[in-house]
Amino acid sequence: MASSNSGETGAGLVLRSADPLNCETPISALMGGTVTPNENFYVRNHFRVPAIDGARWRLEVGGLVRRPLRLGITDLVNLPAQVQTATLECAGNGRAFLAPPVSGEQWELGAVSTAEWTGVRLAEVLDRAGLKSGAREAVFRSADRAIGRHSRGAGRFEWSLTLDEVHQADVLLAYAMNGQPLPIQHGYPLRVIVPGWYGVAAVKWLTEIEVVGQPFRGYFQTEKYVYEWERDGRLEREPVRQMRVRSLITEPDADGEVDIGPLAIRGLAWSGVAPLARVDVSVSGGAWQPAELFGQPSTCSWQRWELLTKVSGPGRIALRSRATDGAERTQPEQPEWNRLGYGNNAIQEVSIRARRPRSSFAGR
Amino acid sequence: MASSNSGETGAGLVLRSADPLNCETPISALMGGTVTPNENFYVRNHFRVPAIDGARWRLEVGGLVRRPLRLGITDLVNLPAQVQTATLECAGNGRAFLAPPVSGEQWELGAVSTAEWTGVRLAEVLDRAGLKSGAREAVFRSADRAIGRHSRGAGRFEWSLTLDEVHQADVLLAYAMNGQPLPIQHGYPLRVIVPGWYGVAAVKWLTEIEVVGQPFRGYFQTEKYVYEWERDGRLEREPVRQMRVRSLITEPDADGEVDIGPLAIRGLAWSGVAPLARVDVSVSGGAWQPAELFGQPSTCSWQRWELLTKVSGPGRIALRSRATDGAERTQPEQPEWNRLGYGNNAIQEVSIRARRPRSSFAGR
Repeated sequence: MASSNSGETGAGLVLRSADPLNCETPISALMGGTVTPNENFYVRNHFRVPAIDGARWRLEVGGLVRRPLRLGITDLVNLPAQVQTATLECAGNGRAFLAPPVSGEQWELGAVSTAEWTGVRLAEVLDRAGLKSGAREAVFRSADRAIGRHSRGAGRFEWSLTLDEVHQADVLLAYAMNGQPLPIQHGYPLRVIVPGWYGVAAVKWLTEIEVVGQPFRGYFQTEKYVYEWERDGRLEREPVRQMRVRSLITEPDADGEVDIGPLAIRGLAWSGVAPLARVDVSVSGGAWQPAELFGQPSTCSWQRWELLTKVSGPGRIALRSRATDGAERTQPEQPEWNRLGYGNNAIQEVSIRARRPRSSFAGR
Repeated sequence: MASSNSGETGAGLVLRSADPLNCETPISALMGGTVTPNENFYVRNHFRVPAIDGARWRLEVGGLVRRPLRLGITDLVNLPAQVQTATLECAGNGRAFLAPPVSGEQWELGAVSTAEWTGVRLAEVLDRAGLKSGAREAVFRSADRAIGRHSRGAGRFEWSLTLDEVHQADVLLAYAMNGQPLPIQHGYPLRVIVPGWYGVAAVKWLTEIEVVGQPFRGYFQTEKYVYEWERDGRLEREPVRQMRVRSLITEPDADGEVDIGPLAIRGLAWSGVAPLARVDVSVSGGAWQPAELFGQPSTCSWQRWELLTKVSGPGRIALRSRATDGAERTQPEQPEWNRLGYGNNAIQEVSIRARRPRSSFAGR
């Protein structure tokens, strides 16, 4: 944060794959603020970004409803608005650190970002459509299309939530991101936001909501986004849902240099399961020290944290942070391996080097 | 908000003068979110933007203190951090609408923006310096310099606050803006943020804080930022301080077209004097209707508001919004003229045209 004098907005994105486009957020873009600027917000696509004409685009709401709806953007904007700051994390964030390695995008730590989303509550739209008895789930369908080598198992991106899940998460249909229309790579003109859940549920380029009476068995939620591991020779499976508790060290820079003397260690922490209870920090293997948490505890959005300490001599220092949520879940020491590499919320270690100071308080 | 499919961040800034650089925020960039992206944040300069080398930059804290300080950016970053969302409005915002016209930048309505600022509380720094008895005010000095035609009356930008004002506003020394290092045009590396006050107090490129024992009589606060008007043949003067209560209509677009049917009217409102009590909206001269306010009432940051109504026939419609704060201050019907054109918080009127709809809810 202290090294730029260019006035530039900074580091942009780190490209992981070009087709489909997948990029992660540089940790340096996560210093200091709550929301991530749109140009630094991580991008996760399963297929190519579709071409969409906003004037012709419509959202169809059908299935087990009394009044099927066909809504243009103007219709949605004229419904009561809801503003929600929500953190989105790719379930595969941290996959690159699993051993043995697993296939899939090799995300390091930056497939997570936070935005202030504006839109319409899904409940508001479903109330206008009117649910029929027997309605159990809402299926979200995207305008994207599988082509060529990306086509196996799915023609387009689909995801469902039970109506209980819709209610509990207070799902938003978002048309704006940090006060701007959704950028096309983030789902223009409309995206599902499921606060607290991994980003996979945040369907982009939404064109259809179908209310169904039976559990939806789509490819992405039955074949793909599933924790899978063996225990006692048996295959265990669990669907990917809420974000696991996790923390990230954003300051000081990994592999950076710091002055001997006062040192601020800062970062972000979140859990989609329960609001954070605490974040602890350990310096070079020392005892866990409680960090100060800023902002309101919430399963929707990350919180900033800070620990002020002192560095007494030169050399290597290892910093670790560990978040614990109100459901008493905490970060494991080592990654919990699973076949497709989801939910790696292991404790992060950042190594820095301390040196003699170059500037200081006068008189210190 | 509904008309873009480019994924571009949008409208940038509206240039008012190039030297010194002064730009206002397009109202279209204020739709939807709380914070204004850095690239859309209005820019107000009295002098040229200085060139600053962050590695050599220091903040000097002196005058009536026991331990004068000389702080680099690293020193500041290693102090406890404070995060504060604060609205900054230029005291001359709306000057262009005064009659008779007054000199100065001809701001329309966009010399106002909001950011999440990160920095160190001024109280924290003053505590470390230690105030001597007799300390009364803090004078803030900028690295900018008057040159040529901008030089009259002042060699550099300076502003002071009493220590009571510092305490009441909980003044921040900010090094980050929306999670990024301060852009140079916004005061890199350090800027004063005085929540609730007009932007004039938010001294940029801060290099010096002098604690003094007498009221500071600087050019900008005694000659320039003063409400001045005649009453009963006598000149009355009052210094510019907190932002007056005000509201802004951001949707629908001024001079735009809307469909007959449901209409959402949205905007922003703020007061630096007291938290907002209410925002009312009048449609085509009809009764004032209470809008819904979002977020937490605060003198630091604006709040979003929304009124959902219906348009029953085609033709011209005049929309007006009026904010009232907890100190029972409200917006006047007409601008209150003063010699230098400050604090014009008159009710805004937006004219739109209604037409037959092109898209609608099915079955409506």
